[in-house]
Amino acid sequence: MTVKISVLKERDEGGERRVALIPQVAEKLAPLGITFAMETGAGVASSYPDSTYKNVTFSPDRNALAADADIVLAVQPPTLETVKAMKPGAILIAFIYGRNNPDLVKALRDGKITCFAMELAPRISRAQAMDALSSQATLAGYYAVLMGAVHMPKILPMMTTAVGSLRAAQVLVMGLGVAGLQSLATAKRLGAITEGYDVRPETKEEAQSLGAKFVDTGVDATGQGGYARELTDDEKQKVRKALSDHIARSDLIVTTAAVPGKRAPRLIDAEQIKAMKPGAVIIDLGAEGGGNCEGTQAGQTVQVGPTTIVGPVNVPSMLAEQASELYSKNIMHLLQQIITKDKGLAPDFTDEVISGTALTHDGTITNDGIRKAVDPNS
Amino acid sequence: MTVKISVLKERDEGGERRVALIPQVAEKLAPLGITFAMETGAGVASSYPDSTYKNVTFSPDRNALAADADIVLAVQPPTLETVKAMKPGAILIAFIYGRNNPDLVKALRDGKITCFAMELAPRISRAQAMDALSSQATLAGYYAVLMGAVHMPKILPMMTTAVGSLRAAQVLVMGLGVAGLQSLATAKRLGAITEGYDVRPETKEEAQSLGAKFVDTGVDATGQGGYARELTDDEKQKVRKALSDHIARSDLIVTTAAVPGKRAPRLIDAEQIKAMKPGAVIIDLGAEGGGNCEGTQAGQTVQVGPTTIVGPVNVPSMLAEQASELYSKNIMHLLQQIITKDKGLAPDFTDEVISGTALTHDGTITNDGIRKAVDPNS
Repeated sequence: MTVKISVLKERDEGGERRVALIPQVAEKLAPLGITFAMETGAGVASSYPDSTYKNVTFSPDRNALAADADIVLAVQPPTLETVKAMKPGAILIAFIYGRNNPDLVKALRDGKITCFAMELAPRISRAQAMDALSSQATLAGYYAVLMGAVHMPKILPMMTTAVGSLRAAQVLVMGLGVAGLQSLATAKRLGAITEGYDVRPETKEEAQSLGAKFVDTGVDATGQGGYARELTDDEKQKVRKALSDHIARSDLIVTTAAVPGKRAPRLIDAEQIKAMKPGAVIIDLGAEGGGNCEGTQAGQTVQVGPTTIVGPVNVPSMLAEQASELYSKNIMHLLQQIITKDKGLAPDFTDEVISGTALTHDGTITNDGIRKAVDPNS
Repeated sequence: MTVKISVLKERDEGGERRVALIPQVAEKLAPLGITFAMETGAGVASSYPDSTYKNVTFSPDRNALAADADIVLAVQPPTLETVKAMKPGAILIAFIYGRNNPDLVKALRDGKITCFAMELAPRISRAQAMDALSSQATLAGYYAVLMGAVHMPKILPMMTTAVGSLRAAQVLVMGLGVAGLQSLATAKRLGAITEGYDVRPETKEEAQSLGAKFVDTGVDATGQGGYARELTDDEKQKVRKALSDHIARSDLIVTTAAVPGKRAPRLIDAEQIKAMKPGAVIIDLGAEGGGNCEGTQAGQTVQVGPTTIVGPVNVPSMLAEQASELYSKNIMHLLQQIITKDKGLAPDFTDEVISGTALTHDGTITNDGIRKAVDPNS
C-alpha cells in the first residue's frame, strides 16, 4: 500500500527559500512505502538541487502534483488553487496560520482536506520532535545576533590590540523563548556581555545558565502554552521603568516577544529609543507581528534617532539549508505517526498530538479557536 | 607654543564613516599644548556627535580649517583642493596610497606639505602602536566572518535540537595576516571547524594556536615586511592542487591575500568555485585590490555557480566607531612622537619611524618607491 507524497516548490513572490523535504528525510521515509514527487527545483533555493534527491520524481506541474497526492507538503500556506486541486480526504502539512488566512481554512474545510498545521503542534514533550515553531525559532535567534553584529559600528568581543583594548559590547535580549535563549547563547559565544529579560521569571535560570545576567522587573506574567500572558497597564509601567536603564546602555538589543493570535507586545517605546547610545542596534524579531519596538517597520531597516532598527521578516528562510533540514525532520516525525508499514496511512485522531495539530478534517474546522475566528457563526 | 590641529569630515561620496579623532584622544592630547578644530559633524557617522568632544571647536568651512592648521588629520586621502588650502610646512596625516593617487602626492610635494601616510608606518615593533593597517585589518577580519555568516544558508556552530544535531560549518581562511588570523579566531568563537592557509609556513603555529588546522601545500613564499612574495607558476600549480579539496568542502571561505603595490593574488579560480558546495560563501577581502577570487566584483555580492562571492570594500568603515577609536589612537602615537610639551611640534627625521612614515617633506617625495612610481624622471 503506497502513500504518494507531493512536495511543493515555495512561491518566489514570498521570498521563501525553504523546502519541506530534504534528501536525507526522503531516503529515511521511503521504507514506509512512500513514493515522493516534487515540484521541479523545489529545493534549489535551500541548497538541495534536484540531483541530490534519490528515488524522487520531479514535475513542473504543481496542480497535477497536488491532485495526485495522498499528502502534500509545503512550508508556507499554499494557494487556494493548490488546495482546490487536492483530492477530498487528502492531507496537507504546512504552516497555515489560520487566523491570518481564513479563506484558505474554509477551502480546506470545504475540500474535505485533512490539514495538519505545523504551528499547532502541541507544546508537550512527546511532540517536541514535531515542533517546527521551536526548530525555526532557534535558527532565528542565532541569526538575529549576526544581523545585529553586521549593523553595529563596533565588535561584540573584547579585543586587545597594540593600541589598547576594545570593550566588549553590551547585548540585551528581551523575550527568552527558544529564539531569545539562542540569541543569548550566540552573543555570548561572540564575546558580548549579555543580559536577558522576560516577563516569565522562570526563564531567569535559563538565561543565567547561558552566562547572561537576568533583568528582574518584579512582574510575573507566566501564561499558558509556554507563552507569556498580556500585562496590565500598571505592570507595563513597572516593567518599563525597570528596563529603561538596561535599554539605554545596550549596544545591541534583540526583541523576540510574541503573544499567540495577538499583536506583538510593545517592549520598547520611542522615548526609550531616543535615550539609546549612538550606533545602537535593535533587531526586532517581532516585526512580522507588528513589532516589539515603536518605529519598527517589517522587512526594513530604519534609523530612529541614534538607533538602527532592523525588522526582519521570515528569518528562518535566511538559513534555508538548515531551516529546511529541521523543518523536514519535524514533518518526518509527524509522518512517522500517521503512516506505518503495516497499516499505511492511518492518522489516529484519538492521539492528542494528531488531533492537536489538525486544523481541518472531514469537512470540519477541528481547531476550536480557529473555527471561531474564521467562521464565528459555526 | 600651541599646535593647531584640524580634523576633516570624510566625504560622503566615498561612503567613509570613520573619523580621525575621537573625543578620548582629543582629551588625552590637549595637555601637549594642542588646540583641536573639527569640521562640523565629522564624527557623527562613527557615533561621535559633536557634543561628545570637549574643548574642540567646530566649523563647517573645510578649506578654512585646512588653511589654519599646523596639522590636518583625515582617514581617506583628502582632495587636491584641501591640500592646496594648507599652508607650506604644515603636516598632513592620513591614508594616502600614493601609487594610486599620483596627483595628490605631487600636490603635497609642490605645496611643501609634510605628509605622514599612515599606510607607510614601518612594521617594526616600536611602531606597532602607529600601525593603522594592522588595527583596521583586525576589525576587517572579524567583520568578514560575520558577513559570511549572514550570507550562509546554515549556521556556524554545531547545534543540538529536539530533531537532531546540525553539523558545524567548515571555514577556510586564506591569507593569515592580521585580518586572516582574526577571521580564524572569530569563526572558531562561533563554533565553526576552521582551517587556515598561507604561503608563509611560519603562520602555521599562529593558526594552530587559534584552534585551526593548517593546510600545508609544501610551498614557502616568505617575503619582506610581513607580506608574502609572489609565487612562481610552478609553485602556484602545486598550491592550487593542494588547496582544491579544502576549497570544495568549505561552507565559508575568507580570502585576505595582498601583495603591496600589486594586484591581489588569485587564490581561487572559476573551476574551483564550480566545485564548491551549493550555498557556499566566499568573502573576498582582496576585492579592492582586484580580488583573490575569479569572479569577485568589488563592492558587490555575486552568485557564481553554487557560490555567493561577496567583495566588500572599505570593511573597517562598517565598524566605524571602533575603527575610528583604533585609528585615532594610532595617530595619537604618531603625534606624541612629533609634538612634545617642551619643544612643541618638532618631528625628528633621523628617527626611522618618522622618516619611514613620511611620504613628502619640504618639497620632496621622501619615499623612494613612491617617488619612482609617481615621478619616474626624478
